Amino acid sequence: MNRNLDVGHIVSLLKNVLKKKDGLIPLHQPTFRGKEWAYVKDCLDTGWVSSVGKYVGAFEKKLAEYTGVEHAIAVVNGTAAMHICLKLAGVEEGDEVLLPALTFVATANAVRYCGGIPHFVDSDWKSLGIDPKKLQDYLKDITLIRQGCCYNKQTMRPIKAVVAVHTFGHPVDLDPILAICEKYKLVLIEDAAEALGSYYKDKHTGNWGKLSAFSFNGNKIITTGGGGAILTNDLILAKTAKHLTTTAKVPHPWAFVHDEVGYNYRLPNINAALGCGQIEVIDEFIQEKRTLAQKYRQVFKEVQGITFFTEAAYARSNYWLNLLLLDEEYVGLRDPLLLATHEEGILTRPSWSLMHKLAMFKECPRMDLSAAQDLEQRIINIPSSVGLGEK
Amino acid sequence: MNRNLDVGHIVSLLKNVLKKKDGLIPLHQPTFRGKEWAYVKDCLDTGWVSSVGKYVGAFEKKLAEYTGVEHAIAVVNGTAAMHICLKLAGVEEGDEVLLPALTFVATANAVRYCGGIPHFVDSDWKSLGIDPKKLQDYLKDITLIRQGCCYNKQTMRPIKAVVAVHTFGHPVDLDPILAICEKYKLVLIEDAAEALGSYYKDKHTGNWGKLSAFSFNGNKIITTGGGGAILTNDLILAKTAKHLTTTAKVPHPWAFVHDEVGYNYRLPNINAALGCGQIEVIDEFIQEKRTLAQKYRQVFKEVQGITFFTEAAYARSNYWLNLLLLDEEYVGLRDPLLLATHEEGILTRPSWSLMHKLAMFKECPRMDLSAAQDLEQRIINIPSSVGLGEK
Ligand SMILES: Cc1ncc(COP(=O)(O)O)c(C=O)c1O
Ligand SMILES: Cc1ncc(COP(=O)(O)O)c(C=O)c1O
Repeated sequence: MNRNLDVGHIVSLLKNVLKKKDGLIPLHQPTFRGKEWAYVKDCLDTGWVSSVGKYVGAFEKKLAEYTGVEHAIAVVNGTAAMHICLKLAGVEEGDEVLLPALTFVATANAVRYCGGIPHFVDSDWKSLGIDPKKLQDYLKDITLIRQGCCYNKQTMRPIKAVVAVHTFGHPVDLDPILAICEKYKLVLIEDAAEALGSYYKDKHTGNWGKLSAFSFNGNKIITTGGGGAILTNDLILAKTAKHLTTTAKVPHPWAFVHDEVGYNYRLPNINAALGCGQIEVIDEFIQEKRTLAQKYRQVFKEVQGITFFTEAAYARSNYWLNLLLLDEEYVGLRDPLLLATHEEGILTRPSWSLMHKLAMFKECPRMDLSAAQDLEQRIINIPSSVGLGEK
Repeated sequence: MNRNLDVGHIVSLLKNVLKKKDGLIPLHQPTFRGKEWAYVKDCLDTGWVSSVGKYVGAFEKKLAEYTGVEHAIAVVNGTAAMHICLKLAGVEEGDEVLLPALTFVATANAVRYCGGIPHFVDSDWKSLGIDPKKLQDYLKDITLIRQGCCYNKQTMRPIKAVVAVHTFGHPVDLDPILAICEKYKLVLIEDAAEALGSYYKDKHTGNWGKLSAFSFNGNKIITTGGGGAILTNDLILAKTAKHLTTTAKVPHPWAFVHDEVGYNYRLPNINAALGCGQIEVIDEFIQEKRTLAQKYRQVFKEVQGITFFTEAAYARSNYWLNLLLLDEEYVGLRDPLLLATHEEGILTRPSWSLMHKLAMFKECPRMDLSAAQDLEQRIINIPSSVGLGEK
């Protein structure tokens, strides 16, 4: 093994940046320092903990204001948000949906919930998200357009949508992907589960797709315990999303009529209350996360064989989950490094397993995935909680 | 209209029982008087609000202890619980599932989430749930058994399961339904969303079906904001339920491998904390609800033309949602009564619309539904919150 890079050295660098003392340093833990308590207690005091209550609306308003997307519909988690985005994009039984092989399993599962077929595409080294150039060449090869619809020539199934995942908070290069979507009649959905606080060019993520999904799980930049949101600039889609996520009940003071198969995807008021407290201090959170990223970058700049991943020139990232990329010759150090950091109480993790390797998605169509395969071997996520960086 | 029954008189009786002053009396609002705040605050103090944390396990343990069902899996709501119960019962694309037409829409929606076809059955005046006698006669007529499986002779689709809904907390007559399930090779699932604290004979509801679903929505006897649980006495099903509801992730300290299409149906820790506080005082809640029911019964005993619905001889009900039944000749008073009570700030509601009348379920198979049709015209739910009865 090359002397230039050794596990012990990386562990000691991490310990330094993280000012490691006793106890575990999780990958990402929540911070409560805003009005979370006051809002949550207000729910208990008034009895409004559930589906009715003012915090759901307030949280939706704050989300819309913060992101600049016109409409936000709070839901029970990011997976539910993805499900409804795909449904509203028109994904039905047997339709294909293009999404990166390098993503969290929820993105692909949500396609299956609609009866759709995930179709896996490769990633870009610059963004960790979909590689637009490769996607373009691939679609040119495998598709045909008939009556304004895109078909996979091999399977003869319609291809309906592209899901751009902003991996670890880093924005995908959206402009070329939008051009591809236009050319191939595909709906763009942003899986922005990890990207609250991340900007592509001058606009917040979630503004570019027809619909986008956010997550407020406990490991995200802000949390509602469990929670998510659907964002869209389209009023009709927003109304339909609200309707579908609240059992498709037709409004009436007492009668119970539902006009389609709907879902109970409401975010409870108590969880929304937590979210209101959190989003009010998100600017601080992002500042601290960017400071931490800056420190990591500084420290790892000197180290040969490993790179701290930084935002693309077009992006301003929330640095939700920081990562190191091992050079090709050091991929063998990944597992020893994961083990050593865990032993030292510094929680790290490798890439998700690529989607096409999971038993239930083995038979799904895919392009050449060489960049994703490569990234899978090289990614190591490192602690990223708010509070690890200075204010 | 008959002089014996008038809307004004009923409103004044309700006002009396409810000691109505200013302000609204909701149909069912939560009460927090246990350790809810201490537990929720503990989540905020420790940062454990989300998918990891001690309250989920604690709540599951308390549920199992309280109901006497061996395993409880906390989930995000009752609809999610129903979905997983049906999936674990083997309901797949094109399978039929027998369920009452008189139920909340979630029961039927959950069948559709599995790709199944709801098949609507009639209700019993004694329980408001499935009529066993009618079900027996119907199945004799329309089914055939081939290789240990039940088929609908008309549609030639497999019939997989029966969902017994304990309507408004009142237990269905389960013994004859179990006998039918055995005879016709059907899996019994209890939709006990409304029935925490309700007993059939000597055992808590949820012990009789192979699987059962509970809800802790804000309007239920105890609440977690939003929440639910799957209960089962079968260890293998319990483990599968936990796996499926937590994204089907294969346990590992860091690797992300998922071995089937799973769901994010976890109950967040902060919601489970609320549930722990609630279930600790459920005995008080039930006592108060039964006292209120007793008062209603007393008062309406004197009134001709309307009946307060009480538990069957075999049951001990939680009286989750109290109801009045109008006599046949007074069904015309239902809407005026709903209107008059709402105007007085006493929130009441009619029956759910029967499932086969909803646009998306119009084409579903069904038996003669005369009892359900009749009940739909006659049911009026009246305020039932804990705290309206004496301690
Ligand atoms: C890329 C991505 N998509 C979807 C999700 C699903 O969000 P949730 O966990 O809130 O259901 C997540 C987060 O876990 C995610 O990271
Ligand atoms: C009979 C019945 N089934 C299912 C559900 C679904 O539960 P939840 O609202 O928690 O999703 C409810 C409660 O709303 C219900 O009353």
